[in-house]
Amino acid sequence: MTNKTSNQMWGGRFAAGPDAIMEAINASIGFDKRMASQDIEGSRAHAAMLASAGIITDSDAEAIREGLLTVLSEIETGEFPFSTALEDIHMNVESRLKEIIGEPAGRLHTGRSRNDQVATDFRLWVRDQVDAAIEGLEALIRALLKQAEAGADWVMPGFTHLQVAQPVTWGHHMMAYVEMFGRDLSRFRDARKRMNESPLGSAALAGTSFPIDRHMTAEALGFDRPAANSLDAVADRDFALEFLATSSITAMHLSRFAEELVIWSSAQFRFVALSDRFSTGSSIMPQKKNPDAAELIRAKIGRILGAMVGLFTVMKGLPLTYSKDMQEDKEQVFDAADSLMLALAAMTGMVADMTANRENLEIAAATGFSTATDLADWLVRELNMPFRDAHHVTGTLVALAESKSCDLPDLTLSDMQSVHEHITEDVFNVLGVHNSVASRTSYGGTAPSLVRAQIERWNTTLDNGDA
Amino acid sequence: MTNKTSNQMWGGRFAAGPDAIMEAINASIGFDKRMASQDIEGSRAHAAMLASAGIITDSDAEAIREGLLTVLSEIETGEFPFSTALEDIHMNVESRLKEIIGEPAGRLHTGRSRNDQVATDFRLWVRDQVDAAIEGLEALIRALLKQAEAGADWVMPGFTHLQVAQPVTWGHHMMAYVEMFGRDLSRFRDARKRMNESPLGSAALAGTSFPIDRHMTAEALGFDRPAANSLDAVADRDFALEFLATSSITAMHLSRFAEELVIWSSAQFRFVALSDRFSTGSSIMPQKKNPDAAELIRAKIGRILGAMVGLFTVMKGLPLTYSKDMQEDKEQVFDAADSLMLALAAMTGMVADMTANRENLEIAAATGFSTATDLADWLVRELNMPFRDAHHVTGTLVALAESKSCDLPDLTLSDMQSVHEHITEDVFNVLGVHNSVASRTSYGGTAPSLVRAQIERWNTTLDNGDA
Amino acid sequence: MTNKTSNQMWGGRFAAGPDAIMEAINASIGFDKRMASQDIEGSRAHAAMLASAGIITDSDAEAIREGLLTVLSEIETGEFPFSTALEDIHMNVESRLKEIIGEPAGRLHTGRSRNDQVATDFRLWVRDQVDAAIEGLEALIRALLKQAEAGADWVMPGFTHLQVAQPVTWGHHMMAYVEMFGRDLSRFRDARKRMNESPLGSAALAGTSFPIDRHMTAEALGFDRPAANSLDAVADRDFALEFLATSSITAMHLSRFAEELVIWSSAQFRFVALSDRFSTGSSIMPQKKNPDAAELIRAKIGRILGAMVGLFTVMKGLPLTYSKDMQEDKEQVFDAADSLMLALAAMTGMVADMTANRENLEIAAATGFSTATDLADWLVRELNMPFRDAHHVTGTLVALAESKSCDLPDLTLSDMQSVHEHITEDVFNVLGVHNSVASRTSYGGTAPSLVRAQIERWNTTLDNGDA
Amino acid sequence: MTNKTSNQMWGGRFAAGPDAIMEAINASIGFDKRMASQDIEGSRAHAAMLASAGIITDSDAEAIREGLLTVLSEIETGEFPFSTALEDIHMNVESRLKEIIGEPAGRLHTGRSRNDQVATDFRLWVRDQVDAAIEGLEALIRALLKQAEAGADWVMPGFTHLQVAQPVTWGHHMMAYVEMFGRDLSRFRDARKRMNESPLGSAALAGTSFPIDRHMTAEALGFDRPAANSLDAVADRDFALEFLATSSITAMHLSRFAEELVIWSSAQFRFVALSDRFSTGSSIMPQKKNPDAAELIRAKIGRILGAMVGLFTVMKGLPLTYSKDMQEDKEQVFDAADSLMLALAAMTGMVADMTANRENLEIAAATGFSTATDLADWLVRELNMPFRDAHHVTGTLVALAESKSCDLPDLTLSDMQSVHEHITEDVFNVLGVHNSVASRTSYGGTAPSLVRAQIERWNTTLDNGDA
Repeated sequence: MTNKTSNQMWGGRFAAGPDAIMEAINASIGFDKRMASQDIEGSRAHAAMLASAGIITDSDAEAIREGLLTVLSEIETGEFPFSTALEDIHMNVESRLKEIIGEPAGRLHTGRSRNDQVATDFRLWVRDQVDAAIEGLEALIRALLKQAEAGADWVMPGFTHLQVAQPVTWGHHMMAYVEMFGRDLSRFRDARKRMNESPLGSAALAGTSFPIDRHMTAEALGFDRPAANSLDAVADRDFALEFLATSSITAMHLSRFAEELVIWSSAQFRFVALSDRFSTGSSIMPQKKNPDAAELIRAKIGRILGAMVGLFTVMKGLPLTYSKDMQEDKEQVFDAADSLMLALAAMTGMVADMTANRENLEIAAATGFSTATDLADWLVRELNMPFRDAHHVTGTLVALAESKSCDLPDLTLSDMQSVHEHITEDVFNVLGVHNSVASRTSYGGTAPSLVRAQIERWNTTLDNGDA
Repeated sequence: MTNKTSNQMWGGRFAAGPDAIMEAINASIGFDKRMASQDIEGSRAHAAMLASAGIITDSDAEAIREGLLTVLSEIETGEFPFSTALEDIHMNVESRLKEIIGEPAGRLHTGRSRNDQVATDFRLWVRDQVDAAIEGLEALIRALLKQAEAGADWVMPGFTHLQVAQPVTWGHHMMAYVEMFGRDLSRFRDARKRMNESPLGSAALAGTSFPIDRHMTAEALGFDRPAANSLDAVADRDFALEFLATSSITAMHLSRFAEELVIWSSAQFRFVALSDRFSTGSSIMPQKKNPDAAELIRAKIGRILGAMVGLFTVMKGLPLTYSKDMQEDKEQVFDAADSLMLALAAMTGMVADMTANRENLEIAAATGFSTATDLADWLVRELNMPFRDAHHVTGTLVALAESKSCDLPDLTLSDMQSVHEHITEDVFNVLGVHNSVASRTSYGGTAPSLVRAQIERWNTTLDNGDA
Repeated sequence: MTNKTSNQMWGGRFAAGPDAIMEAINASIGFDKRMASQDIEGSRAHAAMLASAGIITDSDAEAIREGLLTVLSEIETGEFPFSTALEDIHMNVESRLKEIIGEPAGRLHTGRSRNDQVATDFRLWVRDQVDAAIEGLEALIRALLKQAEAGADWVMPGFTHLQVAQPVTWGHHMMAYVEMFGRDLSRFRDARKRMNESPLGSAALAGTSFPIDRHMTAEALGFDRPAANSLDAVADRDFALEFLATSSITAMHLSRFAEELVIWSSAQFRFVALSDRFSTGSSIMPQKKNPDAAELIRAKIGRILGAMVGLFTVMKGLPLTYSKDMQEDKEQVFDAADSLMLALAAMTGMVADMTANRENLEIAAATGFSTATDLADWLVRELNMPFRDAHHVTGTLVALAESKSCDLPDLTLSDMQSVHEHITEDVFNVLGVHNSVASRTSYGGTAPSLVRAQIERWNTTLDNGDA
Repeated sequence: MTNKTSNQMWGGRFAAGPDAIMEAINASIGFDKRMASQDIEGSRAHAAMLASAGIITDSDAEAIREGLLTVLSEIETGEFPFSTALEDIHMNVESRLKEIIGEPAGRLHTGRSRNDQVATDFRLWVRDQVDAAIEGLEALIRALLKQAEAGADWVMPGFTHLQVAQPVTWGHHMMAYVEMFGRDLSRFRDARKRMNESPLGSAALAGTSFPIDRHMTAEALGFDRPAANSLDAVADRDFALEFLATSSITAMHLSRFAEELVIWSSAQFRFVALSDRFSTGSSIMPQKKNPDAAELIRAKIGRILGAMVGLFTVMKGLPLTYSKDMQEDKEQVFDAADSLMLALAAMTGMVADMTANRENLEIAAATGFSTATDLADWLVRELNMPFRDAHHVTGTLVALAESKSCDLPDLTLSDMQSVHEHITEDVFNVLGVHNSVASRTSYGGTAPSLVRAQIERWNTTLDNGDA
């Protein structure tokens, strides 16, 4: 009877009433325990500083620091008794610390507050993800460089509008992605520098009157400097947004490559074979190989972009400083980070494992008069023909080849001269897909020699750690 | 040593190598186990139909249906041994069924495939959420109606630009949200009708040659009809997108009300007192009451909108029919649904518990010459003055009141007549905030009598179940 | 010198200083003039009602209504002198009306305000777009039905993961999109019903003390009823959000079909030929046909989804009632509506014009042992084999065919019986792509007979106007 | 009759049929003419390089370069006859150039293509916007610094959850925004460096066989280097996405400040008075001042975030290299850039013009026992009390003050000592809002001396141009 009423009151799902609802919406321990090691790292640094500044005694600091290690060990071994009633990771840790070391635990919170503590923990967590993203990107770039090295001179179609446009090399195509992921690297590195400021010691919002040393804790936690404004320090989530924005661009790059792999794996294209480890088969259709990993990677941009939109929406129009809305920052970032790292690892695995079908690539590159622009360029360059005229002559020659059911390189010289008398034997040097790619020697072009130079440049850059 | 290499290869986090990565990205059992009861419900309906159509024997069907109940019971009691190697909920259930009942389990999958099975399970799950949202909205509307009834004639400021514009009633303001949440109800109901089609029996994508009866399974599962095109049935996620879009609009309404509650709870406004159950205090600042629940509700639109953007992004440009990308549909929807139900319940609780500060509301309503437009309207209506002239006279009277540091109702009749001689005693009937709200009797206006009529209309509508 | 200073002050672009900035950010006439006809329609209805209610004289009403027609005509012929100083379309129209008819113009604004006026205008505009979307969707569905009729029995591959899975019919594939766009129709119709409420007469926010008749203006403007709460009526933008959400789902469907057309047009697929009217060529590569329209349609979801995110973000957390933020609603909706209508028309044109390459479709459908599941189903159905055993036998037969470099229908009966002795001649009735599709007769399946029935159902539905 | 049919066919709006539709969806000249000056700048650099490399004659180059200046001048004066039939800005310019200079115009397109041309133009355009954003941010920071200087020691409430938490200074609050906009500056500068690569000379996608000098054109156009991979160069839109992401963060900061200004302008807060130039009044309610500009700024994040989501959605899953989808990049970026620059300028104007109400700020800061934490900290610091005990004593003292209807500084020493005997006269040095803020001297804290140091640091930084 009572249940029925309560049921109606709370819309069915929360029969237990208001207290259960408030706990469900308010407690963050269910997710913020992922920041346990960051929380303990921050508290250990804070305790050391408090002692160094004479705010607490050395023995209290030592007890706190040792006790925190015990807590950490309990968490890592899974013995820690997380409590929802204690709401968040900070209270869970502090409460357990008190059980372990007693009274000195109560001095840890001197000169700080929950606001700067959570800001510090989350920033450390995000910084770790930036480092993981950098590592993941470097692994992916190395896998791409290996593919590029192997196929620096393999010929494949260069597409626009998914139509064959001009021949390019496999290596050149791989290196296009190296450039993209290289920019991602650079973005993550810039983001890391910008976010690497310590909020610790901003206290609730105004700073504190205790003579704390924020530079000391900043240094202990690997920050470049303490944040310069305490209001900003507890109200700021830029670092999370910039991480999400940067991750979204990376995810977009991954989605483009994944789309290509899906298309290239189709029976109609057969440009690549993905390894069994990253695809799934059919028990009765042996040739069917579903590119599951590629599809999942292609989809990951969804949740990463969604997380970014989510956090922007949360932050929109929030007055300073801390509002509880900001508790909705973490799950989004956690999920996006997990998605990104997984997608990077899966793509790295697929790239390392995949096998290009050189024959199909070259056949596809040679179809559709794909060297017509080479012919036109030759006419301009060698016969000094204006562009429009060159195009007209080329069109006529293509039509001739089409009528003969052959490709341009298969025309004879006299075929050629029947259309324009000044064409010479030399023209055949630019026709054919290998000639075509070899001729594209402008900086950044697809010529194998240039591709190899770019591979070397990237290998050096990565080895020097300054990508 | 090996670890080091592997580490470098896979970007650090996936030292276990490709198989671990593929399992991590590919397996869905970690989240799709939330659809266990829907999966079993669908399979039970399918088995009954297979027997009815003579495709399997009655005894096999009975064994399957009983065995599935056993599986369900194992899941509900937490005994079920979920296996990541079995990838998803469908394989987990089927595999356990085989352990329990043996050979007949192998006949369950006749005339269906994983594609229509997952489409059916997910649709059932989303439909349940729609029902929960409807229930939650009705509870919230009832709570608002109670507030509106209590304060149908309490006067408060009506704001534009967060500036006091005209007096309105508390009941009228509450009823504005009833209208919003009422539209949400209507949207969820429309969405439910549209999504209520059964994909089951679409098989992989083309339908099946078994003489299955899709109308029978549709009916058994509470669907209005089977989906009319098998390709569409397995490729469609409209129902999830429409659920997310509808939820986003509801979440937007919640964010507006939550923002008002945050502002109204500030020391500067003091329009309402939230109950201790939905706010948190400070141990040393007794008057500080943080509107945590309101802030968290305000933020929930972030993840719901983010989930919608995420799923749109996933679905963008996917060729028919099923692509593995679509596995990224569930976690987003699960999270959005949880967020919505929680936000609705918390808002219902807050509304039920909150206390309006009638005195402050009325004082605020009376400031700023908020009945100036009533005066101007009186001049137009009673003295047949053109609008512009009425505005000029009103402006002069306001200036007069301001110079006397009083409000409009405090002016004397001779003050009034000094500005315009034809003003009569009758003018005072429209000045004063109670007079003002009582006079707004156009349909939909703020007059208490109209507000009460709207409350009654809504109570009737809800009781009749046709909101 | 002054310029230099001013330049620095205002960041360079707004040398003219604050007034220019405020005008630039504040004035809406640059875009809201698109609502001129709705504004005039609303004002004409309001004037007629004012006279009918005895609030203004019949002759004033007549003068206003005639004058407004003159203004409309000036706008339609491009003679109207729009003024940025007058900020918005409402003031522009009213000011011009005053020039034309003099004093009575001042009485038009009785019993209404800018807030309900803009809400009314925008709602009428969006309602017109809903009607245009419905018309556009019906045209597209008709074009799809024609393609489906022509190819109800043409065989093509049904894909999952862009891998050939089972044969389906061209008609069935077209009808999958008919179902999608049919749901879109239904969504737009539901949205139209829900939005079809008149805000007019809500005045600034509280209603009015003039004895206006809101039902009369509602009816005159084609609304089903007046909005029931004046605060909600001026603060609500649900109708715009629901339009955007519904449009986004339609745009998602368009993006999927467009993606298929791009892939199908590639040299590797050659499933369809798009007409020259919706593609562009290369002057020298005659076979190259860029599917420009398909690509642009695929992209349109971007700005429509972006517009929706934009408006949700604007509305998030806005207190009641009108805030100036809401002026940012229109440009987003205008752009999304234009994009949607254009994409629908272009897709309709492409579908009407495109030519399926029946031969390539059928060849592709027959590759990859695409009837293996038909064989397995036959074994289950005819030999009462358990599913797993049937799969094992099928796998063996496929391997046999593969070793003979032939497809399943090319095996002899003795080949078949060498694997399982009970297989009979009858098995060949389900092999071969035509047999396969003909056998899929479960409701919603790909069998041509069923496809034709669905086509007929849809033709009837459209002709009856109740899609 | 025909019209009727055509109407039905095309969904009503495009009676003119397919050609009109294709032109409407395909032509970009309606918006890409905004890149006219960038297009001409790029072409002039290209022509000079072609001559320098001996690919065209010096006189042809000179004719081209002069002719382009003529075209530019025609565009700037509004005389240029834009043609939709010529589709885009590139063809419009080239076609007009041919009319002006004749045959040499045909040589301009040597060694480049539309793909690298559009990539170059758009990149130059975006780079200009980055520069404008930097300029706008610097202007805004300077305006904030002036406010901070004026009120470095004015006391106001520091809020959490919109509840008064601790006193801070006006200057400190202003400086929080300086930090935010300072990070934005840094993000735009990083983005500029990353995007500053020249695509020109990548040709269609593969590079070219003409001996062009890409470093020369890069330098002429102010780029730091040519892009290193031609496929990437024509397929990349990272620079636009990074611009949008960075702009979104800036817009989020603006929305927070704008929200504060709206709240602070309310009758309930009265913390600031906005100037008449950035607000609008009511003709009859003199005290009503709508913060229109603040509201519009708050809303701008909507369309900027929407534009970003839009472009991400467009780019998701696009195979290399150029696809026509990418034409949907510009309008989104144009609109976002316009919105950002306008919002920055309007905010700068508002900040420069606004007047803080010092008295109200200080009164608000002193309410609610806002120095209770100062008292607790004093007990910890001076009496070496553990944190929990200090909190208990403080709570008792606050209750005592509350019972006496006074604030903490109003208690007598004997009141204090009645709760804890060791409290001394010295405690009054930390009570009172001025004492409180002065005591917060940890780095980044709100003490006026620290605020002034930060102001000086920022002034120096800006003057040195290295913010």
